[in-house]
Amino acid sequence: MKLVAMRYFDDIQPGDRASFGGYAVTREEVLEFARKYDPQPFHLSDEAAAKTHFGRLAASGWHTNAMTMAMLVAHYEANPIASLGAAGIDELRWLKPVYPGDVLRCETEVLEARASQSRPDMGIVRSRLTTFNQNDEPVLTFIANALIARRTAA
Amino acid sequence: MKLVAMRYFDDIQPGDRASFGGYAVTREEVLEFARKYDPQPFHLSDEAAAKTHFGRLAASGWHTNAMTMAMLVAHYEANPIASLGAAGIDELRWLKPVYPGDVLRCETEVLEARASQSRPDMGIVRSRLTTFNQNDEPVLTFIANALIARRTAA
Repeated sequence: MKLVAMRYFDDIQPGDRASFGGYAVTREEVLEFARKYDPQPFHLSDEAAAKTHFGRLAASGWHTNAMTMAMLVAHYEANPIASLGAAGIDELRWLKPVYPGDVLRCETEVLEARASQSRPDMGIVRSRLTTFNQNDEPVLTFIANALIARRTAA
Repeated sequence: MKLVAMRYFDDIQPGDRASFGGYAVTREEVLEFARKYDPQPFHLSDEAAAKTHFGRLAASGWHTNAMTMAMLVAHYEANPIASLGAAGIDELRWLKPVYPGDVLRCETEVLEARASQSRPDMGIVRSRLTTFNQNDEPVLTFIANALIARRTAA
């Protein structure tokens, strides 16, 4: 039983907002990601991080991006959208450190929705995503350029 | 014995280039990353990916970013730089799919190196990074804004 209708490019308006997430950041996961992908000392131990502006063990910014993607995918599973993929990301900024024990959530806002000149079956939706910690401090922000199918193409 | 001198902001010039990496992408790692952070069907099975433009199992773009960071960290371990972190990323584009079996490498070029107005102890270095596959096709590109300490501050 499908309760939620698929949303197409035609359904999306600038100003549309969504709020979702709730990702608990664990020390084990911070260490596991850092060992594989970002083994800088401040992502590997409290002792090394204490010597930096992080103060204590902090997650790799690329790990925060990955956790944010996990929240996005879960959100779009619950709220299906006719996505054809992402063309890219602009203005990505890591605003505050993310620490073990933090709980992350996301907010999105559609900035622009325009038809594709070259592909009449899709549109390009430009949205700002912001990831917050449990104190409502923004830790990450970026603009995503997503390709969304038009209803007429479905 | 330290054979490689630490490089500071003062040592960096627009046009500086580096080439490094050699990251073998495995099916196991593609699946492991996707299950945790980007469980979209085309990142989880060949069957689902065959129905999309990917054609077969493809790595999450965020995974490609993470593998690129692993190459960057290894490069800077061998070629130390007085990094104070990254302010952010601009113009990130996923140009081609990354597949299990691919071997990735990176090239960087410094676009701009400017003193910080507010922090005389550091400069901001804007570099383009491009990740290539084994066929020398660019798969990922972005501009990184890095904060680098001045020698005088050391």
